[in-house]
Amino acid sequence: MMKRKHLDEISWEDFNNLSLEEKAPYLVQANGRPFHTLFAQQFDREQLDRLCDLATRIRRISKHREGVKFLGDLLCHKRAMLYFSQPSSRTFLSFYAACQILGFRIAEVRDPSISSEMKGESREDSIRTFSSYFDMIIMRSPLQGLAEKMAWLLSNTNRPLPIINAGSGKDQHPTQALLDIYTLVLSFEKRGGLANKHILFCGDLARGRTVRSLALLLTNYSNISMTFAAPDQLQIGKDILEQLDNAGVKYELTSNFKDAIPQADAVYMTRIQDEWDTKPGESSHIDLTQYSFTGDDLKRLPMYSIIMHPLPRRTEIDTACDNDPRAMYWRQMRNGMWIRSALIATNFGRDDEITQYYMKNLK
Amino acid sequence: MMKRKHLDEISWEDFNNLSLEEKAPYLVQANGRPFHTLFAQQFDREQLDRLCDLATRIRRISKHREGVKFLGDLLCHKRAMLYFSQPSSRTFLSFYAACQILGFRIAEVRDPSISSEMKGESREDSIRTFSSYFDMIIMRSPLQGLAEKMAWLLSNTNRPLPIINAGSGKDQHPTQALLDIYTLVLSFEKRGGLANKHILFCGDLARGRTVRSLALLLTNYSNISMTFAAPDQLQIGKDILEQLDNAGVKYELTSNFKDAIPQADAVYMTRIQDEWDTKPGESSHIDLTQYSFTGDDLKRLPMYSIIMHPLPRRTEIDTACDNDPRAMYWRQMRNGMWIRSALIATNFGRDDEITQYYMKNLK
Amino acid sequence: MMKRKHLDEISWEDFNNLSLEEKAPYLVQANGRPFHTLFAQQFDREQLDRLCDLATRIRRISKHREGVKFLGDLLCHKRAMLYFSQPSSRTFLSFYAACQILGFRIAEVRDPSISSEMKGESREDSIRTFSSYFDMIIMRSPLQGLAEKMAWLLSNTNRPLPIINAGSGKDQHPTQALLDIYTLVLSFEKRGGLANKHILFCGDLARGRTVRSLALLLTNYSNISMTFAAPDQLQIGKDILEQLDNAGVKYELTSNFKDAIPQADAVYMTRIQDEWDTKPGESSHIDLTQYSFTGDDLKRLPMYSIIMHPLPRRTEIDTACDNDPRAMYWRQMRNGMWIRSALIATNFGRDDEITQYYMKNLK
Repeated sequence: MMKRKHLDEISWEDFNNLSLEEKAPYLVQANGRPFHTLFAQQFDREQLDRLCDLATRIRRISKHREGVKFLGDLLCHKRAMLYFSQPSSRTFLSFYAACQILGFRIAEVRDPSISSEMKGESREDSIRTFSSYFDMIIMRSPLQGLAEKMAWLLSNTNRPLPIINAGSGKDQHPTQALLDIYTLVLSFEKRGGLANKHILFCGDLARGRTVRSLALLLTNYSNISMTFAAPDQLQIGKDILEQLDNAGVKYELTSNFKDAIPQADAVYMTRIQDEWDTKPGESSHIDLTQYSFTGDDLKRLPMYSIIMHPLPRRTEIDTACDNDPRAMYWRQMRNGMWIRSALIATNFGRDDEITQYYMKNLK
Repeated sequence: MMKRKHLDEISWEDFNNLSLEEKAPYLVQANGRPFHTLFAQQFDREQLDRLCDLATRIRRISKHREGVKFLGDLLCHKRAMLYFSQPSSRTFLSFYAACQILGFRIAEVRDPSISSEMKGESREDSIRTFSSYFDMIIMRSPLQGLAEKMAWLLSNTNRPLPIINAGSGKDQHPTQALLDIYTLVLSFEKRGGLANKHILFCGDLARGRTVRSLALLLTNYSNISMTFAAPDQLQIGKDILEQLDNAGVKYELTSNFKDAIPQADAVYMTRIQDEWDTKPGESSHIDLTQYSFTGDDLKRLPMYSIIMHPLPRRTEIDTACDNDPRAMYWRQMRNGMWIRSALIATNFGRDDEITQYYMKNLK
Repeated sequence: MMKRKHLDEISWEDFNNLSLEEKAPYLVQANGRPFHTLFAQQFDREQLDRLCDLATRIRRISKHREGVKFLGDLLCHKRAMLYFSQPSSRTFLSFYAACQILGFRIAEVRDPSISSEMKGESREDSIRTFSSYFDMIIMRSPLQGLAEKMAWLLSNTNRPLPIINAGSGKDQHPTQALLDIYTLVLSFEKRGGLANKHILFCGDLARGRTVRSLALLLTNYSNISMTFAAPDQLQIGKDILEQLDNAGVKYELTSNFKDAIPQADAVYMTRIQDEWDTKPGESSHIDLTQYSFTGDDLKRLPMYSIIMHPLPRRTEIDTACDNDPRAMYWRQMRNGMWIRSALIATNFGRDDEITQYYMKNLK
């Protein structure tokens, strides 16, 4: 169990200078479970297992009208603020639904131009304002580190409340990594779990924060191996490979995606992240024709393997694959709702209650 | 009772090529009641009667605090998505309120520019995404046929859910037609019902989808007659008149609105739809002075007749008429909330429960 | 107790020509409690005391899960419309949270460009539309007098409903004044109440509606004295001083803010309201360096005095003051949520029920 340190006993500068590993203990509750959710690497294996188990329980409880009511009563006395100053609908709606499942009253600030920022207020003041009226803040912002700053700042007031980072710049998107892990765990439930599986990543691996976070989180599971398939310019970063080396993970780099498919237990497709181009049109010169999954590729894919994609997609996966049972991307998205519900319920200490309900009524 | 056909047993191309009449059976549940709501002509007389009766029950139940709670509990375990990519406040709020009455948890996407469409996602993928988190989609879009496409698409996944078309281009706006019918039925309740009544339509009849849908739906009632009062350029389309001929409905065309008022049981005013002008300012040359309802016209209108308007209005009805008991347009709008509640409750199979509550407590 | 007059027995023109004092009796219910909330001066001392007491009860009840549920059940059968056609996040979210506390179902119209106004509808018609679906309207608009007009208009229909002015132009913002009063009352609870206290106002006193309203409301309390510290161009208006004279309030004007601090029981800081500049950059020439509260000023401030600010702030208060126990501005903002809850509960006649619950369970 992760031993808790206290955010109100460290200055912002000192905290900010810590490594992610050193920051992690500041984000947990006394019982070792997550309080703030800021970056993917804060989760250890024990926390991941707990969250995945809880997500499954919530999902199953939700199949029954009485179960939905039980869940909807858990946090109906709490109010959540969704502060999304960066475009998003998928993540926004997934969090929205997760909050609704747990009964939260929700308010949102989506377009910063309609907020008081135009009156010259600092962003910190704005968010502290929102915190006055709410019991949790889920935030997405183009500003790297803002979520961390707010978590620290609010932990130093008399109303500390959980902050969830719903995506910050090209940096971190921890709940996306959680839903990817949950989808893998769920898909391999009857195949001995995630251990020993081979994951094939394909696409813009250089700039996709999703792949970067997921690759690192997978080091929590034993004997995972990975292939990274991408054109040279978009190949995965050396910093990630270094961390995989340190963790003893076997991996391979290739520019031949198609040949790697038959060995994959999971194929993780990603789209080109051209919003991060440093020059307009920079990535449009890259030939991506060999980095998409077509109807033909279904024949190359083993019978129990799965296809994932964080969505939105462009042409990386042919719509002809959509109804194949191995196409996991729609369910993957729905899993985001369950794992986020599990995370939030845990932040508020309601995980045990859910487990007890599940054991009593559905086991 | 309409016999059900199955949307997952027909290809999109085949379905898309059917006539509206042929499409209708694909939109119902096993018990013949509406599941998807896509176009006004899908409703037969039996369905219309049921919906109007149910709307009245919901309206009466809502007068009591306990009744409001009963209704608010019916679908509180469900989540509704309002996807409005076209400006609207009236229709949006009316659906919003209808969902609230039935207890839904609601989320909305209003401005497509803040959604993932900007990342190159297809609209179909976007809406399928939203469907992952919700149990019903109410959608308004400038794209003709999008609601039909989505209804078909989602019926071919493992999470079919009701789609309601809240307005598509200049084409269909089925729930507007329902609320118009309901307002007429309600207004003539003590005058022998809608049969044998004379309806006077006035304004931009060429382009107002409201009038076009309503005129056709009225063929479900016996011996309705109609007058269409409009300047030549804005007169009702030949396609509609042909269908009225086929249904044996008596009608008259005129450019003299004022003289037609004394014969009307209902006067249905509409505004000029200049947003559909093909050239800027095209309709500004049309003299509309004789096509508005003034305080003076109140004297010409029979004592038990009514004035309707789908709103928003510009100058078609003088505000001096607003407090006349025959002015039905504000109540008409509120009726939209009731009939939409009735429709949604029916989509989810809760109509019988409401009727039972009504019979037990309010009859 | 204020004796009620009836808005449907007076024409709009006659009502509009009354003084605020003469208008007040038209805004109350039969029991003398507020129904519409349009301007700060409508509240008499009895009403203020009742609202402050109720706010405190709601705040205390909210500390218990069962209490939150009790409150959330009070008006869960009602729907509130937040019509904010002027940018705001603080006031918006505070009202949003207040409505959520009382269980309201909420809908919002924030950006008038996505409403039907673009189809040529009058604002009165728009708001009357919204009123069809809702049971209360909370509105913020740049149009002076719009809230009054709507209150009058809706009281002359068969669906009168409470209107709350959440800020109209540079004119009125009555609930801001209420939350300021509540913060003062609360802060001086153990120091003999608000009577005999000295309030120091600083900043843009000419154009800040907050200070203008609050100064007048304070005349309801005995023996309050005030100092207005501002550069000449931004000094408080003669109209306000005249009313203070009439009420027998002692006050002083100064351009020396710092020297006034040691005498203050409350220091009320405000930001420069340059959005009301008549020429661009007009106020940028004013030297404001001496009109901000710094860390050094904490030493000058008596131990039991408080610092207030309506927020958003720019540089008027150094963030170094934020964690001082006398810094009341964050709590002040949160108080807005409690007093607004109290106001709305009172509008709907639920105040006694809350008091009974409080007496039974928390006294």
